Amino acid sequence: MTSKPYVRLDKDNAAVLLVDHQTGLLSLVRDIDPDKFKNNVLALSDLANYFQLPTILTTSFEDGPNGPLVPELVQAHPRAPFIARPGQINAWDNEDFVKAVKATGKKQLIIAGVVTEVCVAFPALAAIAEGFDVFVVTDASGTFNEVTRDSAWRRMEAAGAQLMTWFGVACELHRDWRNDVEGLGTLFSNHIPDYRNLMNSYARAKGGQ
Amino acid sequence: MTSKPYVRLDKDNAAVLLVDHQTGLLSLVRDIDPDKFKNNVLALSDLANYFQLPTILTTSFEDGPNGPLVPELVQAHPRAPFIARPGQINAWDNEDFVKAVKATGKKQLIIAGVVTEVCVAFPALAAIAEGFDVFVVTDASGTFNEVTRDSAWRRMEAAGAQLMTWFGVACELHRDWRNDVEGLGTLFSNHIPDYRNLMNSYARAKGGQ
Amino acid sequence: MTSKPYVRLDKDNAAVLLVDHQTGLLSLVRDIDPDKFKNNVLALSDLANYFQLPTILTTSFEDGPNGPLVPELVQAHPRAPFIARPGQINAWDNEDFVKAVKATGKKQLIIAGVVTEVCVAFPALAAIAEGFDVFVVTDASGTFNEVTRDSAWRRMEAAGAQLMTWFGVACELHRDWRNDVEGLGTLFSNHIPDYRNLMNSYARAKGGQ
Amino acid sequence: MTSKPYVRLDKDNAAVLLVDHQTGLLSLVRDIDPDKFKNNVLALSDLANYFQLPTILTTSFEDGPNGPLVPELVQAHPRAPFIARPGQINAWDNEDFVKAVKATGKKQLIIAGVVTEVCVAFPALAAIAEGFDVFVVTDASGTFNEVTRDSAWRRMEAAGAQLMTWFGVACELHRDWRNDVEGLGTLFSNHIPDYRNLMNSYARAKGGQ
Amino acid sequence: MTSKPYVRLDKDNAAVLLVDHQTGLLSLVRDIDPDKFKNNVLALSDLANYFQLPTILTTSFEDGPNGPLVPELVQAHPRAPFIARPGQINAWDNEDFVKAVKATGKKQLIIAGVVTEVCVAFPALAAIAEGFDVFVVTDASGTFNEVTRDSAWRRMEAAGAQLMTWFGVACELHRDWRNDVEGLGTLFSNHIPDYRNLMNSYARAKGGQ
Amino acid sequence: MTSKPYVRLDKDNAAVLLVDHQTGLLSLVRDIDPDKFKNNVLALSDLANYFQLPTILTTSFEDGPNGPLVPELVQAHPRAPFIARPGQINAWDNEDFVKAVKATGKKQLIIAGVVTEVCVAFPALAAIAEGFDVFVVTDASGTFNEVTRDSAWRRMEAAGAQLMTWFGVACELHRDWRNDVEGLGTLFSNHIPDYRNLMNSYARAKGGQ
Amino acid sequence: MTSKPYVRLDKDNAAVLLVDHQTGLLSLVRDIDPDKFKNNVLALSDLANYFQLPTILTTSFEDGPNGPLVPELVQAHPRAPFIARPGQINAWDNEDFVKAVKATGKKQLIIAGVVTEVCVAFPALAAIAEGFDVFVVTDASGTFNEVTRDSAWRRMEAAGAQLMTWFGVACELHRDWRNDVEGLGTLFSNHIPDYRNLMNSYARAKGGQ
Amino acid sequence: MTSKPYVRLDKDNAAVLLVDHQTGLLSLVRDIDPDKFKNNVLALSDLANYFQLPTILTTSFEDGPNGPLVPELVQAHPRAPFIARPGQINAWDNEDFVKAVKATGKKQLIIAGVVTEVCVAFPALAAIAEGFDVFVVTDASGTFNEVTRDSAWRRMEAAGAQLMTWFGVACELHRDWRNDVEGLGTLFSNHIPDYRNLMNSYARAKGGQ
Repeated sequence: MTSKPYVRLDKDNAAVLLVDHQTGLLSLVRDIDPDKFKNNVLALSDLANYFQLPTILTTSFEDGPNGPLVPELVQAHPRAPFIARPGQINAWDNEDFVKAVKATGKKQLIIAGVVTEVCVAFPALAAIAEGFDVFVVTDASGTFNEVTRDSAWRRMEAAGAQLMTWFGVACELHRDWRNDVEGLGTLFSNHIPDYRNLMNSYARAKGGQ
Repeated sequence: MTSKPYVRLDKDNAAVLLVDHQTGLLSLVRDIDPDKFKNNVLALSDLANYFQLPTILTTSFEDGPNGPLVPELVQAHPRAPFIARPGQINAWDNEDFVKAVKATGKKQLIIAGVVTEVCVAFPALAAIAEGFDVFVVTDASGTFNEVTRDSAWRRMEAAGAQLMTWFGVACELHRDWRNDVEGLGTLFSNHIPDYRNLMNSYARAKGGQ
Repeated sequence: MTSKPYVRLDKDNAAVLLVDHQTGLLSLVRDIDPDKFKNNVLALSDLANYFQLPTILTTSFEDGPNGPLVPELVQAHPRAPFIARPGQINAWDNEDFVKAVKATGKKQLIIAGVVTEVCVAFPALAAIAEGFDVFVVTDASGTFNEVTRDSAWRRMEAAGAQLMTWFGVACELHRDWRNDVEGLGTLFSNHIPDYRNLMNSYARAKGGQ
Repeated sequence: MTSKPYVRLDKDNAAVLLVDHQTGLLSLVRDIDPDKFKNNVLALSDLANYFQLPTILTTSFEDGPNGPLVPELVQAHPRAPFIARPGQINAWDNEDFVKAVKATGKKQLIIAGVVTEVCVAFPALAAIAEGFDVFVVTDASGTFNEVTRDSAWRRMEAAGAQLMTWFGVACELHRDWRNDVEGLGTLFSNHIPDYRNLMNSYARAKGGQ
Repeated sequence: MTSKPYVRLDKDNAAVLLVDHQTGLLSLVRDIDPDKFKNNVLALSDLANYFQLPTILTTSFEDGPNGPLVPELVQAHPRAPFIARPGQINAWDNEDFVKAVKATGKKQLIIAGVVTEVCVAFPALAAIAEGFDVFVVTDASGTFNEVTRDSAWRRMEAAGAQLMTWFGVACELHRDWRNDVEGLGTLFSNHIPDYRNLMNSYARAKGGQ
Repeated sequence: MTSKPYVRLDKDNAAVLLVDHQTGLLSLVRDIDPDKFKNNVLALSDLANYFQLPTILTTSFEDGPNGPLVPELVQAHPRAPFIARPGQINAWDNEDFVKAVKATGKKQLIIAGVVTEVCVAFPALAAIAEGFDVFVVTDASGTFNEVTRDSAWRRMEAAGAQLMTWFGVACELHRDWRNDVEGLGTLFSNHIPDYRNLMNSYARAKGGQ
Repeated sequence: MTSKPYVRLDKDNAAVLLVDHQTGLLSLVRDIDPDKFKNNVLALSDLANYFQLPTILTTSFEDGPNGPLVPELVQAHPRAPFIARPGQINAWDNEDFVKAVKATGKKQLIIAGVVTEVCVAFPALAAIAEGFDVFVVTDASGTFNEVTRDSAWRRMEAAGAQLMTWFGVACELHRDWRNDVEGLGTLFSNHIPDYRNLMNSYARAKGGQ
Repeated sequence: MTSKPYVRLDKDNAAVLLVDHQTGLLSLVRDIDPDKFKNNVLALSDLANYFQLPTILTTSFEDGPNGPLVPELVQAHPRAPFIARPGQINAWDNEDFVKAVKATGKKQLIIAGVVTEVCVAFPALAAIAEGFDVFVVTDASGTFNEVTRDSAWRRMEAAGAQLMTWFGVACELHRDWRNDVEGLGTLFSNHIPDYRNLMNSYARAKGGQ
């Protein structure tokens, strides 16, 4: 087995794809607690903005039981391409979506969505087949249970996707705290209660607050 | 076994005690996920304000490793009595705390804190011994692990405490949606992602959003 | 501790209360798998009909995010009193509901609902306070997570409720297989895959099928 | 709460009731691993013989899907009363069974069976109501899942049953190792792999084997 | 490591193999809850019919303890080849079975069965060795416990099988909701309680039901 | 149900009983991780010394497979009565043990041991029956699995024992940090890694280390 | 990724290596329940004899804390080479062991042992490096916890080992029930309680027993 | 898939990298119990000294919320290079760190740290890309939860890292007990309570202690 070479996330070469985080579909997600999942998805959304990564939103059948995209994502990305797919289950089967992806000019795709084995795995597999480097944000993606999740992860991994989490993505993109201590610290404080506690304890001990 | 009579929460007769939710002590809490725990504590804090329940804050050794009270609680209850205990582990051993509790004139005490078997159980047991009705908010209280939690719950339950959760507390206090549909709905929307999703799906289906 | 006396379910003295099994609220239930929960609720519904127990349906705010009662329950109990509560969270605060319960003339109440710590616990506690014998069907009741469930069970148990499951209820009501082997067998076959398999294996071994 | 007085198992005053450990019904048991469950049931059976406790076997509908009593139990207790109930679900509703129990002249009943909330709980509750001291062997009793188990344990406990396990039963009956070191050691060696390992390690270290 | 190329399920090129879902063998399955497992197997069976995929049934030793194929599968596929193997453990060792597979003319094999590490893994490995593309439906396959399951998944994955679940299979086969909204919706409504709830909530909000 | 009155641990009225923490018997403990269990037992041992509580050690059959008392306990309590029981399984059946307990003149007994349902539960139940107040240290007691543990806890709780953990015991005995900040801090630092981290972080932030 | 070719177990070309199942070391095994583990190890031992596979036993430091090989294995394989290694941790570093393996003339090695990441993984990796086909029996191998187990499995899998379980090994070796229905049935009946139950239920239904 | 060749740890060619085990960051670790994690990290530290492996310490932002390196590690490795990184998140981006690694002249890198998907995975991936053999000590590395851990392990494994645990590392480095029975025994006794118990039991049985 020759090792898979280390492809490292690069903020100048990455785009974020948020697939089908819709209010109805979210009720299907049971492999992760709702409080934690909401936090992870919003953390990924915030980091996309923080690193100014081109971001693409897409939904499946908003005007039906699947429900609308969660409003926080719409509000966070007002100028992002928003592809409301008329029927294609695999977002990559939708021409507008693929065009929007290619229009970013980025080679590295950071993907999350609901449900993992379909809305994430299908476009991930298709994008890899076209030569993109795919990074799946596992903790901002959700599905029915741990069996469906595990099968999805294994299928994407076998195809060459890299499995990451939003925190790892943020760290690999940022590279060096000195680029902006305050900005990254704020991102972590907003989405990692334990880290916020560390910051508050430290500030108090230092004599502040 | 004669049954314990049904003591029902009454918003005109209840006070909320938040005990030692400090930034350092929170790192000891491992029987509940940090994202969920933060949400539950803030939900309890919000419902205290929403129902205008007298609320008392207390801390143990803020100027040391235990750290300050989490800032969100300080900000949410700017006029609440805040008893920084100089050393008493059981808040009920602090005269100022007991005075503040009695000054509310309420008979029903809703208690949550960190860690469950000490900061919650000790004042709960003491308050019961003095004739108060005690309602422990289990999901806004945290401790080291499930064994310590379970022991704490059993000890308090054997002494006559009622075990509840923040959602049950809110519902028992509110009694009837017609008292204020929007207010309770907002409380739930802010702290129950699944409920927020239901509301957003419903609004979209109704044609709005 | 004097022991709680054995109150045994009696099909001539029992009624079933199904509280708030609504399509929206069900998305809040995360302490039990959806496939299993659906099966348990329908099993309880079927046994109510099988034993011809008076059954009462009630909902909270059907014309909103909570959604309608699951259609299968409506269809299974076409003549059951159906109390769509205008706002009361505790069904026992609704006069029509209590009237309907009392109209059955039954002393034993079998209760299940969503969510456990509110829609089940509140009427259960109120009914006990009025002298009814309450049997909670734990596996046909659901809630947010195991902490909220456990708190609800303990509170009801301390008040004197008996915790049962649909299978135990069916067996205690039936008393003797000879009363109707085929009927009870069908109920089990429809709702316990393992039991259905036993029956099919037995039939084949006997030479049939 | 006055404490429940300590009723201690006494080998001269105890009988063992094994209820419905049938080959078909065992496929319903999913709250304990089959290897461990088989071991626990046989350990209880062995200790009944070891302490020469009167033992009663009973089954429900052997000539149907429930299947026969597991042959090991039949063989281990060739002279025990064996009550094949024609239809009563609660063994205590069967006159022959109650007669057999009373014929032992024992006041303490050690009960285990399948499934816990029915075949164990029903006769346990009935026996308590008639003044017997009931000891439930929790780990030699099995049921569908942890929810049904927990409900059954709580109902029996509230009624005054003492919850034990086969190892605790053996130890409380034996009282003092000096009564028979070899016999008790053999019982443990046969049913506790870790204890057998301790004995073998010790023997080797002592120079033997 | 060169990535495994994306082989996408194609409804014109796929067949379904259901291996040894027999009433006796099902009692061995303990890595998934029986209610959920039954639902998943029937969902796979329904999707095979919905997409009109050639389907092959096979069993091992029906006239013995393994028991007959579950009757629902027999009824759902009345014209499917049904290979009752006289002794071969690996279905692929049975000539009739392989002939039936090859007679479908399909290159993609969707396999599920009981138990995973034998009845699924053996024919899967053999089929891959003959050049078929194999898709294992993990959640419609069951086995003794999570260790046996995990070992089976890893062995098949290392050999090149793609691990999927019934929902992912349905979505990848369907490709576009517009091909038939109602049909796919019905399949999901029948086998995903959460999705059925979304549909019912939506219909009510829209004013219908 | 009248509430159990609050009996509060009092360092002038409490003794510690360490029962059968022997090197062989410890291999039977599987309801708690060995690293954590070792830490909890040593923490309890340390707190007994820190609060200068009379401590009694006892063992069962040291010169056999059960093995010797763990050496750390022997070394920590060189002057404690050490009752090597010749055969009694329940330590309370040993006259020397009971004499040693009574010789302390203490009314409150803090008990921990291996295995919970025997070595802890038996003397706990016997001591309660003689009028002692019993506090079981649940996390310094271990047994075969969670079923045996749960049964033991329930039996002791029903008899009136209070379930605690070593941390709660230390806090209830200490009452007020001002009695000795450094001593209690050291106890916590030695046995709670998270607390030690808080102390080290605080010291560094304060400018020291 | 080219697929790993299907290497199928062949009873004429396989040997069994049982590594360090010693009475002391077994107390380190905590990733599997002792009852189940004992059963799995003895099942593997029985199948080695049933298929007449050459079997090799080895131990590490028997005359010390590790303890002797479990006596059942010694008795089951009286003529098997038994290599008591004087110090080598990796059995493959012991010349006598490797000679014994090579003397079997078999190319397929079925390995199990304690602990997985050392006593199994080291010789497995070494054997693969010398060209053997290695089949790890995961459920007859044990270790400290699931993290150590998982790391061991992944390391061996990456090196090309096939992960199996004793049941899968038995089935792949046997190939066809007709080779010996009774023998294989007995093996399963002795080590799979669920299967034994199926056989007993079937026999009774057929009219026998 | 060609198998990855067996690269075996060699004490003359290995170095240990301990990355960011800082008192603040440790509060983020929730995929492993704190008692166990502390023990594992110190065990790895001890084995580094025992085998006299060059060891490198590094931290990120010590003078802030992340906190100082845990003092035990500083004390254990007084002469080790200690690289306090001014900002680089990936230690491999820090020139001094890479220089220190290369200065060891070792080809095999044993890495552990906090948190796994960042502080361990990033330098591990970078080191592999430069041709080092990387061995990740999974149980001395910690992170937020099991999802983040699993993603990190998979990413490193796909890149060619070998996943091990501290015990496996110690055994593979030592090779033969005869090299130093006492030293290795002491390492195990200090960090594996079960092994210490075996040693104490053995010593007693042998007549010593």
